[in-house]
Amino acid sequence: MNLGHQTLPYGVFSTAADPRPRVGVAYGDRVVDLPATVAALDPSLAEFVAGPSLDTLLAAGRDVWNRLRTSLAGWLTDGAAVVLVDDVTMHLPFTVADYVDFYASEQHATNLGRMFRPDQEPLTPNWKHLPIGYHGRAGTVVLSGTEIVRPSGQRRVSGGIEYGPSQRLDIEAELGFVVGTPSRLGAPVPLDAFEEHVFGVCLVNDWSARDIQAWEYVPLGPFLGKSFATSISPWVVPLAAFDHARVSPPVRTSPLQPYLDDEKTPAWGLDIRFEIRLNGHVLSRPAFGGMYWTGAQMLAHLTANGASLRTGDLYASGTVSGDECGSLIELSWNGQNPIALPDGGTRTFLTDGDEVVISAVAPGADGAVIHLGEVTGRIGSRP
Amino acid sequence: MNLGHQTLPYGVFSTAADPRPRVGVAYGDRVVDLPATVAALDPSLAEFVAGPSLDTLLAAGRDVWNRLRTSLAGWLTDGAAVVLVDDVTMHLPFTVADYVDFYASEQHATNLGRMFRPDQEPLTPNWKHLPIGYHGRAGTVVLSGTEIVRPSGQRRVSGGIEYGPSQRLDIEAELGFVVGTPSRLGAPVPLDAFEEHVFGVCLVNDWSARDIQAWEYVPLGPFLGKSFATSISPWVVPLAAFDHARVSPPVRTSPLQPYLDDEKTPAWGLDIRFEIRLNGHVLSRPAFGGMYWTGAQMLAHLTANGASLRTGDLYASGTVSGDECGSLIELSWNGQNPIALPDGGTRTFLTDGDEVVISAVAPGADGAVIHLGEVTGRIGSRP
Repeated sequence: MNLGHQTLPYGVFSTAADPRPRVGVAYGDRVVDLPATVAALDPSLAEFVAGPSLDTLLAAGRDVWNRLRTSLAGWLTDGAAVVLVDDVTMHLPFTVADYVDFYASEQHATNLGRMFRPDQEPLTPNWKHLPIGYHGRAGTVVLSGTEIVRPSGQRRVSGGIEYGPSQRLDIEAELGFVVGTPSRLGAPVPLDAFEEHVFGVCLVNDWSARDIQAWEYVPLGPFLGKSFATSISPWVVPLAAFDHARVSPPVRTSPLQPYLDDEKTPAWGLDIRFEIRLNGHVLSRPAFGGMYWTGAQMLAHLTANGASLRTGDLYASGTVSGDECGSLIELSWNGQNPIALPDGGTRTFLTDGDEVVISAVAPGADGAVIHLGEVTGRIGSRP
Repeated sequence: MNLGHQTLPYGVFSTAADPRPRVGVAYGDRVVDLPATVAALDPSLAEFVAGPSLDTLLAAGRDVWNRLRTSLAGWLTDGAAVVLVDDVTMHLPFTVADYVDFYASEQHATNLGRMFRPDQEPLTPNWKHLPIGYHGRAGTVVLSGTEIVRPSGQRRVSGGIEYGPSQRLDIEAELGFVVGTPSRLGAPVPLDAFEEHVFGVCLVNDWSARDIQAWEYVPLGPFLGKSFATSISPWVVPLAAFDHARVSPPVRTSPLQPYLDDEKTPAWGLDIRFEIRLNGHVLSRPAFGGMYWTGAQMLAHLTANGASLRTGDLYASGTVSGDECGSLIELSWNGQNPIALPDGGTRTFLTDGDEVVISAVAPGADGAVIHLGEVTGRIGSRP
């Protein structure tokens, strides 16, 4: 990690000397011990950074988020209590309330449609009218670095059904939006309230067992093909870090309902460039800027029926695919075109022992780079 | 409610005199104040019934559940601190961790398949191989009695798409299973460990906006058509209350994978009879005993990929339909056959102001009746 003062992401860390998990901010090769720093420099903020997670800070709302971020810039040069990033152990940064996964890349949805439903139009008729999403399992969202146990499940094989370890274990590189401010049941959150509710973003690897998913997903959607594990990066980057990364999303080719129409509000396309490495080898560099639906549209849709938000809700974008793709099923075209690796090996899906690292960067002011850190995971075999 | 000593369900209540939410047990027209009773009669149990919810008791595990239930039988006649059920306010009984909704009635799945996919076989090819399920929104699980705000959403109409209040608001009468003992990530829970993990059951009304659902659900499943509200009954009935209600599930017409095969273990079919009333008029009395998949099979499937359980996980059976049906879309056959009401009115789907009450009973020992109480909800219009 090489994080400048424009990123200032929040996470939860501990050290050998002080094993209590506590809130920190990454800066260069250091982590600001926020409770210690705030106690010395601005005790009025102490209540928001106390405790073993970001939960209280997330719930504090945008005014506090802005005040703290502004203060941090000054503290970095004058008096912050810091530890070296190499000396910290990271922890899951917040309590995940509900987890929702969207499907916001037109290229990804088109590619998956071609593979899963070859006899039909690849994009379903609803795709350009609403950001399609579904609820995932919040209880199996795990911290980057957690070993991923290869899931078992049912799959269709010639001659019938069998149960066993997935043979098509995949990744999905995604951006995750972390909700801070809750909303009231029955009250939709409009597009322009996105910054009031969303604290920031993290990186997500939505591990996927394609053989399990393909057999189970009709008619009620993905379930066990996804619910075994979802990894998130340890550092949550505040939305405010992306002021210079905002771009227009792709031109919408179908008229939108007013609650999703962002033509007249500043849109939330984000010029974030992902990189996916398998055992150190770069597989692809998908661009988030090409995603058809923005985080603000996803939030407006998620709440359009009056569903309430809780602090700690996490919603992910779906696989980031464009000219380059964010999943192995796309990179290997359903396993038909194995990916060549520099060690002479090939991959269609993941092998036991494989390590996947997803990282991302975005432009900051004056040529600076906003670093989103990384989310990693190694595949273990069934214990 | 008329609950005898064979039911002894747990809930969370407060009174005008003591507004702290606390754990109680219903018995006849009374509620046992459990913290007060335990403090006087068995302080060794105090830690498990402290606090404002059932969470600690759920996490305590089966030995504690059994010990407390055995003790209660004696306390009811000798020394329990009680209040009248008419004097209590009920609260959401536990913190819902993840919420999963299954689809376990063959009749319901067949009926919905006929209506949603008229050009295909009504049951999808996977249906008899695994209990189909999906994750729902835990944050919008609400207590019985909470007003249900009619959700808005997109629906397909002739000539295009429109957004507005749902015109096909429906109910789904379901049984909910409440997880007490958690499980480890990567370790499936076998069929015969059902009683170690599941504390008890409640009644669920899985409110459904059929027009929103029909437009959104392909390919990733129900989302906003369900996520606006799910109501649960205030009383959780321990599994131990159903010793005399266990029955064999329907004969399986397709061979099952070993992790789902309950032929050699005592099966968990349950002879629970539901009753659905609309504005006081009985609409139907579906039988849970005919459900194809049992609660034990749902749990084994939910964890077959290694997904972990948390205390407070709630999984529901899906609509209970058999000879009689547990949803309006089935009772009115997709709105084509309006239901006649005694006041001369008719219904296809719910009208603002409608009140739905779902109740259920099961056989106990010696001709006694196990009462599952009821889950109620009235439809409000958009505020």
